[in-house]
Amino acid sequence: MATLGALDSLTSKLREIHHLHDAAAVLSWDQETYMPAGSGAIRAEQLATLQTLAHNQFVSREVEALLCTFLDSETGILLSKHQDSLDDTSQALLRETWRDFSRAKKLPSAFVNKLERECSIAQQVWAESRQTNDFQRFLPNLERLVGLKRKEADYLGYTDSPYNALLDTFEPGVTVAQLRPLFAELRTHLIRLLKQIQHSPVQPNTSLLTQSFDTTKQIDFGRLVLKQMGYDFQRGRLDLSAHPFTTSFHPTDVRVTTRVFENDMPSCLFSCIHEGGHGLYEQGLSTQHYGTPLGEAISLGIHESQSRLWENSVGRSQAFWQYFYPKLREVFPSQLGGVQTDEFYLAINQAEPSLIRVEADELTYNLHIMVRFEIELEIIEGRVQIDELPEIWNAKIEEYLGITPSNDAEGVLQDVHWSFGAFGYFPTYTLGNLYAAMLFDQAKKDMTDLEQNISQGNFQPLKNWLNKHVHQWGRQYSASDLIQRVTGQPLTPEPFIRNLEEKFGNLYQFPTSFSSKTST
Amino acid sequence: MATLGALDSLTSKLREIHHLHDAAAVLSWDQETYMPAGSGAIRAEQLATLQTLAHNQFVSREVEALLCTFLDSETGILLSKHQDSLDDTSQALLRETWRDFSRAKKLPSAFVNKLERECSIAQQVWAESRQTNDFQRFLPNLERLVGLKRKEADYLGYTDSPYNALLDTFEPGVTVAQLRPLFAELRTHLIRLLKQIQHSPVQPNTSLLTQSFDTTKQIDFGRLVLKQMGYDFQRGRLDLSAHPFTTSFHPTDVRVTTRVFENDMPSCLFSCIHEGGHGLYEQGLSTQHYGTPLGEAISLGIHESQSRLWENSVGRSQAFWQYFYPKLREVFPSQLGGVQTDEFYLAINQAEPSLIRVEADELTYNLHIMVRFEIELEIIEGRVQIDELPEIWNAKIEEYLGITPSNDAEGVLQDVHWSFGAFGYFPTYTLGNLYAAMLFDQAKKDMTDLEQNISQGNFQPLKNWLNKHVHQWGRQYSASDLIQRVTGQPLTPEPFIRNLEEKFGNLYQFPTSFSSKTST
Repeated sequence: MATLGALDSLTSKLREIHHLHDAAAVLSWDQETYMPAGSGAIRAEQLATLQTLAHNQFVSREVEALLCTFLDSETGILLSKHQDSLDDTSQALLRETWRDFSRAKKLPSAFVNKLERECSIAQQVWAESRQTNDFQRFLPNLERLVGLKRKEADYLGYTDSPYNALLDTFEPGVTVAQLRPLFAELRTHLIRLLKQIQHSPVQPNTSLLTQSFDTTKQIDFGRLVLKQMGYDFQRGRLDLSAHPFTTSFHPTDVRVTTRVFENDMPSCLFSCIHEGGHGLYEQGLSTQHYGTPLGEAISLGIHESQSRLWENSVGRSQAFWQYFYPKLREVFPSQLGGVQTDEFYLAINQAEPSLIRVEADELTYNLHIMVRFEIELEIIEGRVQIDELPEIWNAKIEEYLGITPSNDAEGVLQDVHWSFGAFGYFPTYTLGNLYAAMLFDQAKKDMTDLEQNISQGNFQPLKNWLNKHVHQWGRQYSASDLIQRVTGQPLTPEPFIRNLEEKFGNLYQFPTSFSSKTST
Repeated sequence: MATLGALDSLTSKLREIHHLHDAAAVLSWDQETYMPAGSGAIRAEQLATLQTLAHNQFVSREVEALLCTFLDSETGILLSKHQDSLDDTSQALLRETWRDFSRAKKLPSAFVNKLERECSIAQQVWAESRQTNDFQRFLPNLERLVGLKRKEADYLGYTDSPYNALLDTFEPGVTVAQLRPLFAELRTHLIRLLKQIQHSPVQPNTSLLTQSFDTTKQIDFGRLVLKQMGYDFQRGRLDLSAHPFTTSFHPTDVRVTTRVFENDMPSCLFSCIHEGGHGLYEQGLSTQHYGTPLGEAISLGIHESQSRLWENSVGRSQAFWQYFYPKLREVFPSQLGGVQTDEFYLAINQAEPSLIRVEADELTYNLHIMVRFEIELEIIEGRVQIDELPEIWNAKIEEYLGITPSNDAEGVLQDVHWSFGAFGYFPTYTLGNLYAAMLFDQAKKDMTDLEQNISQGNFQPLKNWLNKHVHQWGRQYSASDLIQRVTGQPLTPEPFIRNLEEKFGNLYQFPTSFSSKTST
């Protein structure tokens, strides 16, 4: 009874702390969508207060005492007297809460404040530097940030590489030792595929996507697709923002945003599908476990797997457009009336080297990630001079993609991530792609009529499958445990490569050579 | 130096606490404008957490210790050693903070929680009771609430009447002894004026206002008027909500809402002007004193004076429509093309008895307030049975307005206020009208070309005058001090009555008999 009481108290306390994170998330959503231009300064202060309070409440003696009712205060290991009385769910809740708690405790408040202030300034300087294409201006901020992030890794502790400590923030359990061979294998296949595509006589006519498309109609179509996917507008919204994102304040209030350009129809469309995948994950989390780690997404990689699965495995598939293309053509008869489904399908699947990550296709996107991973690994391990980054960047882009940025704005300055200290974040995008392919492969095995359902606009079975196998668990399982549990195998690039091979082989009409043996 | 340090620390702490109130205000704004329908339950929990935290931080030992560096811990009076070293502003800051602090301290946490829970339930029950026109259903909740509010008055302390303690929450310093004769005098004149209006051969043609008006165009026109008034959209927004309101998270982020009906054009229009008046007050508060009482509105009455001044003294004036009517007619040529300015001006100033307060005109509105004031005074003083309220209500409405509600939904159940425990709130609406008339009178004296400016669409001088004489001060002066300071006289209904007399005498063509002597 006493232990159950302590568990309830812990849960209540975590929920209360979560309300502060929710409030901060509402304020951030508001900032990106509707906040008047003139109130940026005060919003930053309001957010800082909420975040500091949430942090202080979490690392409090109260939470520590509740945790240590069950766990060894040094190691966080479950006390033997509780091993029989607590079910798996409760044990997972304690394990994951301890993970967060012990990480948070390792970082001194003064350090966290300093880092946040530095990030806040660096983001502004980065934005201006990118605008004026002036890396030198950003350099001192970036150098200070790198110093702080290496310090953060020291506080958190690590084996092998300080980068592991940072990676662990975003993708718990994954290490450099695991990523290196994984990415190396992936790269070989991607570069081979890209060459085949580039040498193909078949090339898409992408100009059909850059005609003039009424923006309101684009947004309405995005909303239609979201509804059909099963995204619940009773528990969500679609708004516009400069950069599309998904945010959640509870599974009953999960919001997605998109952006829309008159002359770039895929942008709004695939943003909606992508964010819809994130949104379905958040709407599918347990309300019972809200506020605790069991009501949270596992990792950025698993989160990204949900958006990529819907965006690429579903949204760029032939089956999907078999259903949706006639509808899209109805909305834009003058633009698409003369365009056949296959022509459209080829155009939205164009693969070719480009300089900007966020505009890259399904295939070359991962090469962008590898460039960033390799560079930030060297940065955090202290093996490069920060002032040499532009040259290093350009050389790697040339090596991986065969093209060269003409300036730093389309080179090393293009991404916001480093400016807010998010080193170790990039790999989760590619992990998301790999997880997505593994999960979608398994879904097809479990539901032999999946593609048929998709081609009829029936996404309910896929959504239910994801709810059941991924969403509902929150952090009860780690990413690797979940993937093993659902697919019966550990993380492998094989399904991703095989699917790309099949898809692009068909689209660009080249012989497929990949055998699944190469990666197992 | 040490005392200055303590004052800075107090200000910082108050700002931090204010960030929590701001966050709660953002969440409330979101709830009324964009929140998905399915997430009401969690939003209530998130708000409760923020409010409890803000309360606890405010009544903390930390705040008390900082206050008691300067103030006597029993009486809140400035310690003699500080009387020379602190300027008026600092003394006002301490005085007003002490007022809030000592009131908050008087209410035990358990009581506040109980009251909030009861209010939250009562609001839902009230909404259902009004919907189903079933006072009996709301009765037990209302009885419990009244019990709690009388208890609250006991905790807060009072002289003469427990109602004074509640009134003081919304309109500091005003008492029943002051309101009774004020309202009695006002009533005499209002009833006399109303009779003259009712017997006039001139009657407006209000059907011109209930034609079909495109809602988007109505909102755009409201936005145009707001801009012209000087409401700054770089520091504000206009959105739609079920009930119009103004909210502020800082003078750089002040938001107004309106509602719009196709067949009721004045609704959106005057809501925009009304809320715009509130909005200008909030945008005009001191950013330097943000977070402290000196960065807050004085009272509900003074706040309402700003909305009423713009809505009625300006927005229902001939000068205003001299400028705006041609523009409105341009937007709605088929509806207003044949309507002359005078005809329109008469229609928007119709005065006639009606049952619903929020739809009442400038004149009869105050009779609605008196009914509520008299009833809630009897309620809080324990001189009526709550189950007799419907009969008491109907009798008073009959007495004051000469009409009788046909059911409780258009009678005692019409207002939300009592269901959230806001006893003592209603009088501030009429006080707002009286303050507004006094301030506008003074503005006309100070700026002889005021009406001419208004008739040319130049509202800048009036806005600047209000900024200077009212907005910038926050709570540095009490309502009565401010009014005395600005107008040179204490609160009087004379300007309000005189203006109504003049306006309606002209509109309805009856001889004006009122002399300013009757009220001085």
